[in-house]
Amino acid sequence: MKKIVSFGELLIRLSSPGYQRLTQTKSLNIDFGGAEANVAVSLAQFGDNVSYVTRVPENDMVTSAIRHLNSFKVDTDDILFGGDRMGLYYYENGAVGRASKVVYDRNYSSTATMKKGMFDWDEILKDADWFHWSGITPAVSEGATEALKEALEFAQAKGLTISMDYNFRGNLWKWGKEADEVMPELMQYNHVMSGTHPDVDVLAGPIDDELFKIEGDKIMKEYPNCKVVVFTSRGVVSASHNTWSGALYDGEKVYRSTQYDITHIIDRVGGGDSFMAALIYGLRNLGGPQETIDFAVAASAIKHTVEGDQNICTVDEVQTFIKTNGTGKIQR
Amino acid sequence: MKKIVSFGELLIRLSSPGYQRLTQTKSLNIDFGGAEANVAVSLAQFGDNVSYVTRVPENDMVTSAIRHLNSFKVDTDDILFGGDRMGLYYYENGAVGRASKVVYDRNYSSTATMKKGMFDWDEILKDADWFHWSGITPAVSEGATEALKEALEFAQAKGLTISMDYNFRGNLWKWGKEADEVMPELMQYNHVMSGTHPDVDVLAGPIDDELFKIEGDKIMKEYPNCKVVVFTSRGVVSASHNTWSGALYDGEKVYRSTQYDITHIIDRVGGGDSFMAALIYGLRNLGGPQETIDFAVAASAIKHTVEGDQNICTVDEVQTFIKTNGTGKIQR
Amino acid sequence: MKKIVSFGELLIRLSSPGYQRLTQTKSLNIDFGGAEANVAVSLAQFGDNVSYVTRVPENDMVTSAIRHLNSFKVDTDDILFGGDRMGLYYYENGAVGRASKVVYDRNYSSTATMKKGMFDWDEILKDADWFHWSGITPAVSEGATEALKEALEFAQAKGLTISMDYNFRGNLWKWGKEADEVMPELMQYNHVMSGTHPDVDVLAGPIDDELFKIEGDKIMKEYPNCKVVVFTSRGVVSASHNTWSGALYDGEKVYRSTQYDITHIIDRVGGGDSFMAALIYGLRNLGGPQETIDFAVAASAIKHTVEGDQNICTVDEVQTFIKTNGTGKIQR
Amino acid sequence: MKKIVSFGELLIRLSSPGYQRLTQTKSLNIDFGGAEANVAVSLAQFGDNVSYVTRVPENDMVTSAIRHLNSFKVDTDDILFGGDRMGLYYYENGAVGRASKVVYDRNYSSTATMKKGMFDWDEILKDADWFHWSGITPAVSEGATEALKEALEFAQAKGLTISMDYNFRGNLWKWGKEADEVMPELMQYNHVMSGTHPDVDVLAGPIDDELFKIEGDKIMKEYPNCKVVVFTSRGVVSASHNTWSGALYDGEKVYRSTQYDITHIIDRVGGGDSFMAALIYGLRNLGGPQETIDFAVAASAIKHTVEGDQNICTVDEVQTFIKTNGTGKIQR
Amino acid sequence: MKKIVSFGELLIRLSSPGYQRLTQTKSLNIDFGGAEANVAVSLAQFGDNVSYVTRVPENDMVTSAIRHLNSFKVDTDDILFGGDRMGLYYYENGAVGRASKVVYDRNYSSTATMKKGMFDWDEILKDADWFHWSGITPAVSEGATEALKEALEFAQAKGLTISMDYNFRGNLWKWGKEADEVMPELMQYNHVMSGTHPDVDVLAGPIDDELFKIEGDKIMKEYPNCKVVVFTSRGVVSASHNTWSGALYDGEKVYRSTQYDITHIIDRVGGGDSFMAALIYGLRNLGGPQETIDFAVAASAIKHTVEGDQNICTVDEVQTFIKTNGTGKIQR
Amino acid sequence: MKKIVSFGELLIRLSSPGYQRLTQTKSLNIDFGGAEANVAVSLAQFGDNVSYVTRVPENDMVTSAIRHLNSFKVDTDDILFGGDRMGLYYYENGAVGRASKVVYDRNYSSTATMKKGMFDWDEILKDADWFHWSGITPAVSEGATEALKEALEFAQAKGLTISMDYNFRGNLWKWGKEADEVMPELMQYNHVMSGTHPDVDVLAGPIDDELFKIEGDKIMKEYPNCKVVVFTSRGVVSASHNTWSGALYDGEKVYRSTQYDITHIIDRVGGGDSFMAALIYGLRNLGGPQETIDFAVAASAIKHTVEGDQNICTVDEVQTFIKTNGTGKIQR
Repeated sequence: MKKIVSFGELLIRLSSPGYQRLTQTKSLNIDFGGAEANVAVSLAQFGDNVSYVTRVPENDMVTSAIRHLNSFKVDTDDILFGGDRMGLYYYENGAVGRASKVVYDRNYSSTATMKKGMFDWDEILKDADWFHWSGITPAVSEGATEALKEALEFAQAKGLTISMDYNFRGNLWKWGKEADEVMPELMQYNHVMSGTHPDVDVLAGPIDDELFKIEGDKIMKEYPNCKVVVFTSRGVVSASHNTWSGALYDGEKVYRSTQYDITHIIDRVGGGDSFMAALIYGLRNLGGPQETIDFAVAASAIKHTVEGDQNICTVDEVQTFIKTNGTGKIQR
Repeated sequence: MKKIVSFGELLIRLSSPGYQRLTQTKSLNIDFGGAEANVAVSLAQFGDNVSYVTRVPENDMVTSAIRHLNSFKVDTDDILFGGDRMGLYYYENGAVGRASKVVYDRNYSSTATMKKGMFDWDEILKDADWFHWSGITPAVSEGATEALKEALEFAQAKGLTISMDYNFRGNLWKWGKEADEVMPELMQYNHVMSGTHPDVDVLAGPIDDELFKIEGDKIMKEYPNCKVVVFTSRGVVSASHNTWSGALYDGEKVYRSTQYDITHIIDRVGGGDSFMAALIYGLRNLGGPQETIDFAVAASAIKHTVEGDQNICTVDEVQTFIKTNGTGKIQR
Repeated sequence: MKKIVSFGELLIRLSSPGYQRLTQTKSLNIDFGGAEANVAVSLAQFGDNVSYVTRVPENDMVTSAIRHLNSFKVDTDDILFGGDRMGLYYYENGAVGRASKVVYDRNYSSTATMKKGMFDWDEILKDADWFHWSGITPAVSEGATEALKEALEFAQAKGLTISMDYNFRGNLWKWGKEADEVMPELMQYNHVMSGTHPDVDVLAGPIDDELFKIEGDKIMKEYPNCKVVVFTSRGVVSASHNTWSGALYDGEKVYRSTQYDITHIIDRVGGGDSFMAALIYGLRNLGGPQETIDFAVAASAIKHTVEGDQNICTVDEVQTFIKTNGTGKIQR
Repeated sequence: MKKIVSFGELLIRLSSPGYQRLTQTKSLNIDFGGAEANVAVSLAQFGDNVSYVTRVPENDMVTSAIRHLNSFKVDTDDILFGGDRMGLYYYENGAVGRASKVVYDRNYSSTATMKKGMFDWDEILKDADWFHWSGITPAVSEGATEALKEALEFAQAKGLTISMDYNFRGNLWKWGKEADEVMPELMQYNHVMSGTHPDVDVLAGPIDDELFKIEGDKIMKEYPNCKVVVFTSRGVVSASHNTWSGALYDGEKVYRSTQYDITHIIDRVGGGDSFMAALIYGLRNLGGPQETIDFAVAASAIKHTVEGDQNICTVDEVQTFIKTNGTGKIQR
Repeated sequence: MKKIVSFGELLIRLSSPGYQRLTQTKSLNIDFGGAEANVAVSLAQFGDNVSYVTRVPENDMVTSAIRHLNSFKVDTDDILFGGDRMGLYYYENGAVGRASKVVYDRNYSSTATMKKGMFDWDEILKDADWFHWSGITPAVSEGATEALKEALEFAQAKGLTISMDYNFRGNLWKWGKEADEVMPELMQYNHVMSGTHPDVDVLAGPIDDELFKIEGDKIMKEYPNCKVVVFTSRGVVSASHNTWSGALYDGEKVYRSTQYDITHIIDRVGGGDSFMAALIYGLRNLGGPQETIDFAVAASAIKHTVEGDQNICTVDEVQTFIKTNGTGKIQR
Repeated sequence: MKKIVSFGELLIRLSSPGYQRLTQTKSLNIDFGGAEANVAVSLAQFGDNVSYVTRVPENDMVTSAIRHLNSFKVDTDDILFGGDRMGLYYYENGAVGRASKVVYDRNYSSTATMKKGMFDWDEILKDADWFHWSGITPAVSEGATEALKEALEFAQAKGLTISMDYNFRGNLWKWGKEADEVMPELMQYNHVMSGTHPDVDVLAGPIDDELFKIEGDKIMKEYPNCKVVVFTSRGVVSASHNTWSGALYDGEKVYRSTQYDITHIIDRVGGGDSFMAALIYGLRNLGGPQETIDFAVAASAIKHTVEGDQNICTVDEVQTFIKTNGTGKIQR
């Protein structure tokens, strides 16, 4: 089985227990995250062969993070050691009208200080047929952008399928260029993409099939390698209650999932990443676009009920979820 | 006051904290359960005189389990020591579309290896006027079935009222016979029963009074000792949100409870057991069938808000619940 | 900046973790509360200059309580040491149809045994322009009533604005007189008040503007110093789900807030206190009565999502809540 | 088997986790204690028939306390309900040169407000042959002293053996009389006693046999009913490291135990109570004075390794401890 | 690098927090253990290539156990799925004179029910040069004994080095034969062994070099394949304080380690397994017998300070420990 | 009362619970530290008037840190906001032969990026008579060194007493210069100093009075402002067991403290800071050099029994410790 390579920044997540505010907690739960690591872990649980590539320093917290990835059988052998620190973020779970809160402390990380030429992409991509990245990496620094571009070139040269999650975070783009100046060039390599550019607020609500088709066609024209465009649509009733659905456009037809009512959310961090992982799984292993979007939305709906950044869940569980239409019944 | 004897398997319950998945937790909360023990604990809190009978080995976890029962003044003096192990189960709390999960490790338990002739039923039932059992005991093993049958014969001979909760668990019946082959003979002894046989999926939703009467008459014809048939009806909106109601048929009339909307469930394990306990309490202590079914459904609705297998709740609390129509108001 | 003086009883709050019942928990979380301390903490977080006055003994739990207040920069220098004990209460969080529960152990406290003449009000109120009290203090004892009355006289003499939260707790009034016999005299000093007397159950549901105006005029006639009357209205769908709104009458017009749907409540203790604090903040710092009632209701809606007695929340957070109409969106 | 009646005040113990100071902890572990309850629990675990008598109010914390006693099969049926509050204490575990710390909040308790005539001693002592009390009860209040004296008169009239632990706590004697004025009259009833009066600091170190014999003879002359006098001797190397031994004088000979080196102490609260319980057990069930003092000292040495006020330990464990001379070996 | 194969039973370890007794705890920490898994994890951390082989059922707890092994890069691909249950044990940490306590619940496990012929040893041992087993496997059942013997035959045929830890547990040998009847045949395959037979209590204290040489020669005569015999020597001052040393005999000379004073032990479970792992590491990677026994004893001394069954520690840490002679200095 | 100004870097401390290794923990306890903040907190608890000055960014973790300082009444009004991040460190508690471990993540902190001219020292030092700093600040960056030097110049100009703790951390000096090149110039300002330069390993063990006098005279000659030199002496028996003493030289005579045996250490982080705080307290408030060194060593011995970076302890507690010669006796 050929492997998937997922490339991006690894983060420590430190979250207050239950619904405590960060300013009142006396302890923090440790998880590990980062968009591309989340995709890797989810794919590994689905049974795919996946390698995660990043750059980290050497210390005990990094050891814990790598052991966490190993535990799911994510291949961590191509992780590069170097640099100064591993980024982290503090997380506070929201409720009702109090939003969840992320306090980043990720500047100067080993990923932010990476450079073109540091990774041996020829070796790393040897047995791979898929490369995944997200818009967070170019947001972090110029060096990270160039390292990513180098990876994309190698991936393209080797004929890998390339997928991307736009993952726009306005407050990360601080190194001198805006997303609009940097992303289009990188997106040329994509075959699969979720989200397009920061001005299209697809989270605002469901768009109709016709509009989505028009938008999709525009994207595919702009990025001719692109064969699949997906959107997720989150309706925010409150911090505790969201609706969740998705759609996939393959250049011909719009395939739309069920819309799930998620109340009450346990942990929505990594919802988009779990969608992306399940989408990649579906495109590689399932019958067709409808099965794929159904699987991706169901998997990511489950994620909202799982603590941590990653979707601790199997293919069987996603399929049971779909069959029971998203109502949970006790298993004895 | 004459005592109630409840007979069945005692279990250790090991549950992950909060909403953590079993595969991600690093610690487990300890509770003790088992359908008939849950009935006993609830009845003891209602003020009834109740003795719990089972078979367990001797070790520290059993000591803890028995101390737990003692704490509620359940009489544990007739518990038999012997055999190899105490059954246990791991429990993961579900949420929204992720179902709660039970992982059993109860094979080869001291209850599964018990035999006819091990218990001195003449002595055990001496001051009793009620005997309670459930369909879980005959599911466990042939020996347990025969030990149970012996108890039922003694109970009948001594003129005790006999109640049963069918409690069908398909994945427990593994010793060679099916529920249908074993249960009817045991059910002949019953005066009160909840649930009838595995093919009638009463959980599917509310049935109308007429249908219930027809079904009830059929049961009473098949099991002529039976004077009271009850049903509970659970509507599963999600793992977090259920509706809950019940009905009682006394051979003449169907008495129906309010339907409660339970959102969000804290812990639904033992919901049926708490219903059964409150039903027995009602039949023994309350004015009539309507009061009884109202009390039983209200008590078990409260159970859904209580952590653990057992309904930590008093008669006063059930009555306040009924008076306030199931809305909780802070007590100062 | 002139300071606000808040005067009342400081309490230890010992609550069972999560949704555990008090009778089943093996540990208790420590918080500190009391209506007037809660008001003080919230005002301090909003940036107001606030001094909290009470009477407590000297021991480690008191040290913790005072450090808690200090941490928010509430001035604790005028707290009086003496007497025998600090009151406490045990708290169990309710869910669905099981009400939250408060078990008080506050008799014989240093506040209950305080007397007129113990406090140097001339000094305490020196740099203050506002005095806040609640109906809990006169409920506690005759001595506390007299000490409070003395404070009110000083506050009036010095020209301070006086605010009160009626905070009726029927089960506290045990020292020989009823609320109706004691409160009217004390309420003569008020300029701002929330709630009026125990017979008007304003919590029963929203009253219409006309009625509120009539009621408000009656109050202002009875208590001629009173310039602002406010009501909060709580609709109890269940212990987990409340609606919440408020209205303010300034003698001319009724200003009404949005009604928020709060589901699921994290902790509703101190909801009224957080409203009172935000009301005082609004009256002192915001543009007008509409802004004030909007701010007060939004702030106290947030409180329902915060663990503990106090509203851990800033002015910015309240304003974001209002802007997003009470739906929480993740902040990255 | 005739029962032992133990009479005294029941307390809630709230302790900070691990070695946290009370002023820095955010949670408290709940245990239940009180010298005479500790004796009762330990005796019940040794298999004796024991009833615990006290006076408490009705609330959830009391329910928990009584369930705790029930769990060990201590008979709680003669506990009297009434009064205002249950006493409590906060506990901080010491280490090395930082002493353990107890912050009492036990004034005005239902035990402090009890009176002569409240208990039906004729009924309570019906099936008993032993009555145990401690010097803490008369320290609490005049009413408690008189209630105790009444109990002692009944116990003497019925021919019960009476044991006492002096348990001097200087800071409790605050109701108007000193221990010296009150205790001698109460001690006339004793057959067995541990400690004698506050001026003899037996904790200062081991006294030699000759001296102990002289002291013992003096006591037996002063209190002619007394047949057994015991001492425990604690050497304080540090808060973490104590030595522990004891001696018994039966009017003829001094029997002395091994001296154990206890390093590092897990929890020394209730050390004396566990000694007293094991002494009573020994006098009733073991072969002679040497076996008794050996058993009592070994049992209480084990207590120093058990969290909480009570000695969670069986007769078998004490005997293994003696056989292995107090070194612990892993049991597989 | 050739791999080491370690074969034996995988266990869930459920331990009470801190020093709580099993009969008083309300929660359990989860770890995973078993002698041979402990050896595998430790070797993997030292950087060796190690595969762990066992038989387990399929359920969530097994998933957690395997993920735990994966996290350290132990190869789990040859674990066999089948059978009924995974064994477990409850653990209570001792202190001072209260011994640590293990309550086993491992009967009927998938390892106990394994049979000869189930494993494809030809494949499993393909890239291996070392096979490790312990005396626990033949203690468990006849089937396990035969499966082990089959593995040993394959290992011998393939020329692997075979190491064994006798690990005598008297209370496990319950399937019909005694250790003495079964072990000698299995021990014929060994090249390296720790412990010899149940009657030689090597734990009783240090034996002198001469005696050890005589004993070693006897063993090597009886088991001619054996080239290295090791002993560990534990002196039990108390459950909290042990001494720890070891010796190695290579047929010519006795090599003896420093004796370490371990006070206070954090967790001594797995002490012998960590010794065995470090011994294997030393024999494969270090310069000679003295370096090997020094490394093995130092590594296992560190284990006594690490929570859980496994020695979470690196080669660097062991070497620092040796250099600083076992005194810990803070690292900044 | 004039105030003490303490200036340095504020750190978040994230420590694994109990004795868990950082690589195995799933949660972290939050404390706040930094040498100079620790000094400030301890002095505030002793009743001194103390202001803490540092530079931090604005986020929720900083809010928590400042609230922590406020809680002890440390004045935080002169803390400067700016820069990018707050430094943090991960901490693992050692035991026996496993050393405690600190993993720093403090590069690029707001303190490291501070510059000369950022602080308004004229205003900050207005009501102060004492300035405290440590060798950690110049280790961090050139900017921090210059900002510190500026502060020292102001302090000297205003006639403040200046104290310093050398606090050498070899692995912090990474900005281009060595301690030896930077420290002497800064040390010219000192009146009181603890430790001198990195080559003198005063921690190696007790030095005799004569040698200390010679060394002290040399220091006073080199730094003519210096009037008091102190040393602490730590003997490392193991990570769990240290000895601890100190000596003070005032230019005329060496004053030496008792040597305390600290077994078992709860938390030794901040031991030197607690010594420094108590030394400053002693020099300002106690009778003379002997009382001062006794107080400083006793206070810091207590610190070793307190969790966290700071010495949660009062003047009374230190004095009791001295009186009882460092053995802890339970307080009732």
